[in-house]
Amino acid sequence: MLSRLLAALKGTEVSAHCDLPCGIYDPAQARIEAESVKAIITKYHASDDDAFKTRAVLIKEQRSDLVKHHLWVLWTDYFKPPHFEKYPELHTLFNDATKLAGASGTKGVLDVAVADQLLAKIDEISKIFWETKQA
Amino acid sequence: MLSRLLAALKGTEVSAHCDLPCGIYDPAQARIEAESVKAIITKYHASDDDAFKTRAVLIKEQRSDLVKHHLWVLWTDYFKPPHFEKYPELHTLFNDATKLAGASGTKGVLDVAVADQLLAKIDEISKIFWETKQA
Amino acid sequence: MLSRLLAALKGTEVSAHCDLPCGIYDPAQARIEAESVKAIITKYHASDDDAFKTRAVLIKEQRSDLVKHHLWVLWTDYFKPPHFEKYPELHTLFNDATKLAGASGTKGVLDVAVADQLLAKIDEISKIFWETKQA
Amino acid sequence: MLSRLLAALKGTEVSAHCDLPCGIYDPAQARIEAESVKAIITKYHASDDDAFKTRAVLIKEQRSDLVKHHLWVLWTDYFKPPHFEKYPELHTLFNDATKLAGASGTKGVLDVAVADQLLAKIDEISKIFWETKQA
Amino acid sequence: MLSRLLAALKGTEVSAHCDLPCGIYDPAQARIEAESVKAIITKYHASDDDAFKTRAVLIKEQRSDLVKHHLWVLWTDYFKPPHFEKYPELHTLFNDATKLAGASGTKGVLDVAVADQLLAKIDEISKIFWETKQA
Amino acid sequence: MLSRLLAALKGTEVSAHCDLPCGIYDPAQARIEAESVKAIITKYHASDDDAFKTRAVLIKEQRSDLVKHHLWVLWTDYFKPPHFEKYPELHTLFNDATKLAGASGTKGVLDVAVADQLLAKIDEISKIFWETKQA
Repeated sequence: MLSRLLAALKGTEVSAHCDLPCGIYDPAQARIEAESVKAIITKYHASDDDAFKTRAVLIKEQRSDLVKHHLWVLWTDYFKPPHFEKYPELHTLFNDATKLAGASGTKGVLDVAVADQLLAKIDEISKIFWETKQA
Repeated sequence: MLSRLLAALKGTEVSAHCDLPCGIYDPAQARIEAESVKAIITKYHASDDDAFKTRAVLIKEQRSDLVKHHLWVLWTDYFKPPHFEKYPELHTLFNDATKLAGASGTKGVLDVAVADQLLAKIDEISKIFWETKQA
Repeated sequence: MLSRLLAALKGTEVSAHCDLPCGIYDPAQARIEAESVKAIITKYHASDDDAFKTRAVLIKEQRSDLVKHHLWVLWTDYFKPPHFEKYPELHTLFNDATKLAGASGTKGVLDVAVADQLLAKIDEISKIFWETKQA
Repeated sequence: MLSRLLAALKGTEVSAHCDLPCGIYDPAQARIEAESVKAIITKYHASDDDAFKTRAVLIKEQRSDLVKHHLWVLWTDYFKPPHFEKYPELHTLFNDATKLAGASGTKGVLDVAVADQLLAKIDEISKIFWETKQA
Repeated sequence: MLSRLLAALKGTEVSAHCDLPCGIYDPAQARIEAESVKAIITKYHASDDDAFKTRAVLIKEQRSDLVKHHLWVLWTDYFKPPHFEKYPELHTLFNDATKLAGASGTKGVLDVAVADQLLAKIDEISKIFWETKQA
Repeated sequence: MLSRLLAALKGTEVSAHCDLPCGIYDPAQARIEAESVKAIITKYHASDDDAFKTRAVLIKEQRSDLVKHHLWVLWTDYFKPPHFEKYPELHTLFNDATKLAGASGTKGVLDVAVADQLLAKIDEISKIFWETKQA
């Protein structure tokens, strides 16, 4: 978190994505969607309205998809061979994180703990991401 | 900027969007896309490859669209009547900002200054947004 | 309604949207989606098939999204500062209408009356739209 | 055109599309996109700005796609076997119309005459559509 | 099936779609989505988890849509007037097949037999498709 | 190729994708899009029509995106930890393949040789995929 704040202070916090490439990448995009997924799960359990629950399930599906998409973009488009050499755990980290947003993760379950695991993985990725940006 | 850092320190920085609503909103989503638009314009001028320039124009179109979308979501889904009462300039601010990402803005021109104007409008919106979150 | 018919007779009825801009705008696009939303709500209540009701909820979500999108396009892309000066209620009208197609409107409820309120707002917008086209 | 006006006066003009089905169909959706395609072609020829021309080509592609989509929906979702029996030309009409919005039509060319042919086909479809609605 | 294998052996099996046109078309695209629809229906009936059933319904909707889309592309973009002359049943075949993936087909029902009818129609189309490719 | 034919004969060839999961996966989806990308590049060079070249670039962008998407789905959704143990090269293979469909690959260049490299990577993935299906 500190490195993020420092990055922000230096005006370099900006962030993440198109495949021109524009050079702007930011794990915050995945994190925001994952926070949404977590909030949706919480709201699902707090409601007893069938139609609301249906909406929660379908929106959770879309937001989980966005988490996967933003992570895939970082894995393929931002990270380069030297990064994978320096951080050999990166492949598994991304594979686990995207699985945690899929059928065996936040798409398939309604468990806040799983959303927290997903957020924790995104934090790990984010930490490495900002280290590579500082380098 | 300071209010953002404070919000971040308090762990409330997360933010922005689905229409369940999940309650997670963050102007960073619009800002990230607008930074991308600015970077694309810069890269467009630095290149003399026709196909690259074509790609830059089409990706700029998509990213400008995303800016508009993220701003519209904030305007309709996050901001409520009491906000519009307290900040009577909000409607015009959002209308100007979304126009700056449209045909008369970053979609229609290749001028870094216009991208900077768009970013400045998003900053104004962001400042108001975080004030309302603190309230 | 009469102004629409007159516009149609004069062959100027055509209508609404891309951000080239092509200059073709038409509130009918939002209205058609809103009519669909209303019909979906009616069909939801007439059915006792769970899977059908799930489909109704998810399609209502998509169609409400389209209503919002078409209205946002009119608000940002078609209407210009002189229009907002002449019709100072326009901002609130669009904000209310898009909210009526969102979480607190047709996305979040299954009430035909809300769909009717949405349609009424679209009619108000449509009336102003066609006045500005005549001008 | 007259039948459309009469339909409008009777309040039955509304129109076209989701696959619940909601029962709301309207060829106006295809026509609006086709009008846009025609306007884009005209603007393409009136401009000598390379980036604008690139944008025109890509937006024309999207709008032509929408024309095809709206027509396919009418062909598959609205029209039923008895209609195809009564109007045996319908299949060819739709196939021709969608081809006119494709690679050999408005996607592939920059000819206003082709956009006019597309619009004429949509008018033929529209005429039949409104006849079946009156029936 | 044999003709497909022969085509594969000759290295001509490749396959289906954009509207440049790239000239690559393949009914396998529609078939894969239809197989998915069938598997989803089977899984729906094997589950007693409400949220899973909701997900099954919404994903079945999306996959059925993809079936329709891939078939429409073949009908409009691949098949030409001489094909329709040689195979006069083609129009009806495509209209029936896309209806079988719509509201009166796999979108609207949860019946494996309907998915099988859809797959059978796609096989008929596929057989004709590969005959025309051999010609 | 032989294993594919055998799989086809056994009726197990079907394949590829949604995240219910439906259990249907097939590398053919990525391959078809990559074949399209290759064909688009060839047609780009054969044409001297500016608008056609613009269309080729934008459609190549979309089809390359689809290649990336289909591959990401296989990497995250189909392949499981035991596969990654048995085939330790899989992570790099997928990362290389998706990069070959990105900015440094078929999105960024107009070189048939790069499309061929992409197709070769997809073939390697496909071979492993079918081995795991036989297992």
